Amino acid sequence: MSMEIELGRGKRARRAYTFDDIAVVPSRRTRNSSDVSTTWSIDAFTFDTPIIGAPMDSVVSPKTAIALGRMGALGVLDLEGLWTRYEDPEPLLAEIASLPAVSATRRMQALYAQPIRPELITQRIAEIREAGVVVAGALSPQLTQEHYETVVKAGVDLFVIRGTTVSAEHVSSAAEPLNLKQFIYDLDVPVIVGGAGTYRAALHLMRTGAAGVLVGFGGGAASTTRASLGIHTPMATAVADVAGARRDYMDESGGRYVHVIADGSIGTSGDIVKAIAMGADAVMLGVALARATDAPGLGYHWGAEAHHPSLPRGRRVAVEQVATMEEVLYGPAQVADGTTNLVGALRKSMATTGYSDIKEFQRVDVVVTPYE
Amino acid sequence: MSMEIELGRGKRARRAYTFDDIAVVPSRRTRNSSDVSTTWSIDAFTFDTPIIGAPMDSVVSPKTAIALGRMGALGVLDLEGLWTRYEDPEPLLAEIASLPAVSATRRMQALYAQPIRPELITQRIAEIREAGVVVAGALSPQLTQEHYETVVKAGVDLFVIRGTTVSAEHVSSAAEPLNLKQFIYDLDVPVIVGGAGTYRAALHLMRTGAAGVLVGFGGGAASTTRASLGIHTPMATAVADVAGARRDYMDESGGRYVHVIADGSIGTSGDIVKAIAMGADAVMLGVALARATDAPGLGYHWGAEAHHPSLPRGRRVAVEQVATMEEVLYGPAQVADGTTNLVGALRKSMATTGYSDIKEFQRVDVVVTPYE
Amino acid sequence: MSMEIELGRGKRARRAYTFDDIAVVPSRRTRNSSDVSTTWSIDAFTFDTPIIGAPMDSVVSPKTAIALGRMGALGVLDLEGLWTRYEDPEPLLAEIASLPAVSATRRMQALYAQPIRPELITQRIAEIREAGVVVAGALSPQLTQEHYETVVKAGVDLFVIRGTTVSAEHVSSAAEPLNLKQFIYDLDVPVIVGGAGTYRAALHLMRTGAAGVLVGFGGGAASTTRASLGIHTPMATAVADVAGARRDYMDESGGRYVHVIADGSIGTSGDIVKAIAMGADAVMLGVALARATDAPGLGYHWGAEAHHPSLPRGRRVAVEQVATMEEVLYGPAQVADGTTNLVGALRKSMATTGYSDIKEFQRVDVVVTPYE
Amino acid sequence: MSMEIELGRGKRARRAYTFDDIAVVPSRRTRNSSDVSTTWSIDAFTFDTPIIGAPMDSVVSPKTAIALGRMGALGVLDLEGLWTRYEDPEPLLAEIASLPAVSATRRMQALYAQPIRPELITQRIAEIREAGVVVAGALSPQLTQEHYETVVKAGVDLFVIRGTTVSAEHVSSAAEPLNLKQFIYDLDVPVIVGGAGTYRAALHLMRTGAAGVLVGFGGGAASTTRASLGIHTPMATAVADVAGARRDYMDESGGRYVHVIADGSIGTSGDIVKAIAMGADAVMLGVALARATDAPGLGYHWGAEAHHPSLPRGRRVAVEQVATMEEVLYGPAQVADGTTNLVGALRKSMATTGYSDIKEFQRVDVVVTPYE
Repeated sequence: MSMEIELGRGKRARRAYTFDDIAVVPSRRTRNSSDVSTTWSIDAFTFDTPIIGAPMDSVVSPKTAIALGRMGALGVLDLEGLWTRYEDPEPLLAEIASLPAVSATRRMQALYAQPIRPELITQRIAEIREAGVVVAGALSPQLTQEHYETVVKAGVDLFVIRGTTVSAEHVSSAAEPLNLKQFIYDLDVPVIVGGAGTYRAALHLMRTGAAGVLVGFGGGAASTTRASLGIHTPMATAVADVAGARRDYMDESGGRYVHVIADGSIGTSGDIVKAIAMGADAVMLGVALARATDAPGLGYHWGAEAHHPSLPRGRRVAVEQVATMEEVLYGPAQVADGTTNLVGALRKSMATTGYSDIKEFQRVDVVVTPYE
Repeated sequence: MSMEIELGRGKRARRAYTFDDIAVVPSRRTRNSSDVSTTWSIDAFTFDTPIIGAPMDSVVSPKTAIALGRMGALGVLDLEGLWTRYEDPEPLLAEIASLPAVSATRRMQALYAQPIRPELITQRIAEIREAGVVVAGALSPQLTQEHYETVVKAGVDLFVIRGTTVSAEHVSSAAEPLNLKQFIYDLDVPVIVGGAGTYRAALHLMRTGAAGVLVGFGGGAASTTRASLGIHTPMATAVADVAGARRDYMDESGGRYVHVIADGSIGTSGDIVKAIAMGADAVMLGVALARATDAPGLGYHWGAEAHHPSLPRGRRVAVEQVATMEEVLYGPAQVADGTTNLVGALRKSMATTGYSDIKEFQRVDVVVTPYE
Repeated sequence: MSMEIELGRGKRARRAYTFDDIAVVPSRRTRNSSDVSTTWSIDAFTFDTPIIGAPMDSVVSPKTAIALGRMGALGVLDLEGLWTRYEDPEPLLAEIASLPAVSATRRMQALYAQPIRPELITQRIAEIREAGVVVAGALSPQLTQEHYETVVKAGVDLFVIRGTTVSAEHVSSAAEPLNLKQFIYDLDVPVIVGGAGTYRAALHLMRTGAAGVLVGFGGGAASTTRASLGIHTPMATAVADVAGARRDYMDESGGRYVHVIADGSIGTSGDIVKAIAMGADAVMLGVALARATDAPGLGYHWGAEAHHPSLPRGRRVAVEQVATMEEVLYGPAQVADGTTNLVGALRKSMATTGYSDIKEFQRVDVVVTPYE
Repeated sequence: MSMEIELGRGKRARRAYTFDDIAVVPSRRTRNSSDVSTTWSIDAFTFDTPIIGAPMDSVVSPKTAIALGRMGALGVLDLEGLWTRYEDPEPLLAEIASLPAVSATRRMQALYAQPIRPELITQRIAEIREAGVVVAGALSPQLTQEHYETVVKAGVDLFVIRGTTVSAEHVSSAAEPLNLKQFIYDLDVPVIVGGAGTYRAALHLMRTGAAGVLVGFGGGAASTTRASLGIHTPMATAVADVAGARRDYMDESGGRYVHVIADGSIGTSGDIVKAIAMGADAVMLGVALARATDAPGLGYHWGAEAHHPSLPRGRRVAVEQVATMEEVLYGPAQVADGTTNLVGALRKSMATTGYSDIKEFQRVDVVVTPYE
């Protein structure tokens, strides 16, 4: 247990840390970058790199999902985004990229009000599958019951349930809530579910049988949940807490290893390094991939919270387009700010601190040293 | 007791926290927004939402008091403001909104030098009462003895005594100070009194028989008391301390529940969430409501400290007009920065963290995580 | 003793606090401003207000020394400044105020290279004395032996020895250093000496027989000692430490009370409040008085470090001219930023927190709450 | 051991401090600047001042190495920089200084892709040797085996092996890594090696027989390793830790004193003071010397990381040219920001705090007080 702080009479709190609060430190050993492995395996699937494209329309289209797969990463398509609401969303992506800031939220609220068409879910998944890469699609917990059969029938390899906060114990008086445990038990495909930001929430999600847990709460570049909801999940602490749940659950389950996937606040290669250092098995990237010149966001980035009909909690933000998706992942970098050659930087950081694989690197030393 | 810090030999201090220092964290349970209640009851009065418009000329006019009442909130009229000094203050409000920054303080010092006219107190209260909403008016502790009979005769439902710091034990050699305990005992209507910023000050105010205590010390958007007086009341700690006094006083009084109303530093829906998380029963809003297009401040905001004749300790500040008062409270929001749909955001935050009413939500977990 | 922090193996340090790190908090009692006394007495002299104009050419000329004296404060003339090097320094003050930033240091190095003329020391002191106010002049420890006889003969009431750091134990191989103890013992007039920034340094200065100790190390608005020398004396901690030395020395000396004068980092009325709250008996003001329209700096402010011939450690800085010296001290204020009505604000702060004199107010509660 | 912080379940970290987090404090004694010695001796060599020019093309050319030597300091030539790749690098230095920001990295990647010519190593070292100053050259650990014989044959007095992180235990599957211990044992000249950022890493380097250890990890003005690699070595803590290793190694080795050289984050004279206060014997300066009008960088500064072919982790940064190299070291200063008269400021700081030599000054008191 960490030291509790008394905020005032009868109200105590932990200090929680962001990636900006910490840094990795070298050990006494170094290693060649070429001797380092960044391989990540979940269920039957193995990837060259523990990088997942987030299910956001600015990050993953069917085309980028295929491209990411071919580059040894994983792209997750948002099955409630423009690609399942419109036959041809490309003109709409271009329109979003051209909206003036003042009316962007309003127009996006209108665009995403269009209903989801199940046949488009099927079609998008088929497109990706045909390319021969690992297929992953995401639904929100709210719409999972409505659409999951379409998704499963269309044939995904990994099923992602992603909301700002997903709990194993949702209470509703209106409708019977999704019973995650039963749902996952019944499903044939492995499920990755989140966000969770605490040890307890994550432990309960692990007990549902999920293959992976997303750690986060919309804390990313395009989010305003802290101003809007007062909720914030400092990621360094959250990842460490969920990694702690992974260890305890492994013991309690007699050996089931649930993957911890950091999802949020990861904007640079340095943040990827820190996420793994805190215990993540893989990272889900939004803005870091939206910066690619061939990302579907065309220089803009937004999440599902940005177009909520009555309570948007995020924004469409402009991002600098720094390089192609391949250069973003593998370089060569021509700028030195952690936005390109993400995998090269991860490799170099592991080598410099003397570690040879992702699992080992979770044990690297860190220090608390806030950015000045 | 919280950990004391030694500042230097023989001088110790507590670390005190602002709302910006903290954030609410999700628990393992989630809930539907529609299952959440934001109801607040004080004395015989029940409100849909625990939101109170502050007695400031930029926030509450008789018209806004009525509008807030009809929307399930409470507006408190400043009975020492322009509305009780002038027959028709609307041209003056327009003038204040058009003053150049350099001369605003000087002109406001002149405008507020005009005497208070008791018949206008009576008239303003009557206007609000006729609309059928809960009537609340505020006096400063300095002028309470002079005007309270007019106020009570005019018929208020809730009587607010509000100063930057109000103590149960004011010492004066010049005049007999207000004996709060006797005053409240003699009065027929429930009294809300403050600001108090510490456990002891609040406990003494509770013992006077007040129905509610305002927590704060002019720490809001329009205040400069920290630069001017060196005084500051970090609100997260102050609310928790006063909530602690509420609990102890309830025990000592054999069950009297005194409401804790956070008054200051609440600019966004996220701050409302945090105030309640720290133990507040309701929040008194200034700048957050002054941002309404139909607020009386017409895009400006100021408190009584801004026009003190010799020692102004606040400023008239320009605020962005974001939406109508109704949209500020209930949405739909078209910007995502915590300035509109305050009640929707509170509801969503309670739902996301699994709580169903305000009282329960006071127990939600928080973390210390300063804004970067 | 305060909690020590381990910076690294074998190197420990205390956390030290600035005025910006702290704030005063109200207690459970309040008081009328008119019932508050700000009187300060040192040796045979009593002042309406514990405010001292710093011996800096931008703050105190003979004319301002007289004006401050008449307003119940004390102005200390720098006896190594322009007024003792030039017959008529006013054109030079005007020239300094008109220098472009890029050449200001160089020109000031030249202006202050002119030798000090003893007859001008005599003349300046006589001017002030004739006005009937308390006369105080300052020398640096380096030049005290050379000029003190002139000073004493000219007739000062308070003798100030002020350097960035003054110790009771200066070591020099070149010349016999000033023996402070002997010097003070031999002198007829009370001596105020500093700066000191630590308990030990202050205790040793107190043992020399000084009437007052200046707390500080050039930490003010015009100083760059932190960048240049790596030295910094966070004032909240320094004042508390020296106040601790005052208490211990009073015990050890059988009752001699040495005044603690905060000298540095005091830019607003809020800072004056905090300095006294940490234990100061009086405050020495630089920039706060240089802001007066009738201050000799004509909108600029600098200290002796700014014109050191080979290692300047400060700058001539432009300051906003906010009001007359009288309004700066006593108001009325027409801006609300702690730069005018310094005494009114101190009074109000003492009243709001329930204290009635300076000595009592040294016990007021403070909290640690860094400026956001 | 310092207090550990729990970041989250199962992940603990130390708080680490930068130079900006700390300041030196005066003691009770002061001293004359002229009585202070800044002499530094390593192996058979003695320098007037503990200042080393970093092996970076923007800081040290053969000409500046000679100039620094004549001024009592030490300049280390980068033997993998432009001077050993090109017959006449001066036009290329001028070109780098004229590159637009957007293409600087790309062009530098190309310029530094040119092979190193051993005969130029020989020639550059000869030039410096002829001037009669102490000769020091640096190789990276990667190229040490390839070029050290050329270097030794050319005749260096001090051999520097400098990388972002150098460990005594490099692991490589591709080639036999440099066995530092054997290498240093076989070599005739004293070796300075680093960077190391931790107690353990430094202790292992000390055991290789090195005469000095560089403390740092490219944390300087021109580096972006924190954003890129997530690695950061807060220098105050790192220097103290390595000074701790020096003490422990001295015990374990029966008296061998290994010099601790702070290398990174030292931009002003204040930082030099703090580095020594934390235990450094000498400092290696980059940007602080690149600011000289006669530095080879011509107003720009960069390190080897800035031109890495696939993963640049630094930038060419523009620096203000403040004075000649001699004025940077010895003044007189005409600006007061810690960029000129570095040695004078160090001297003054030691005198003000009462210390007379570098070794003693390592014991000066410091406080933790972050820059506001």
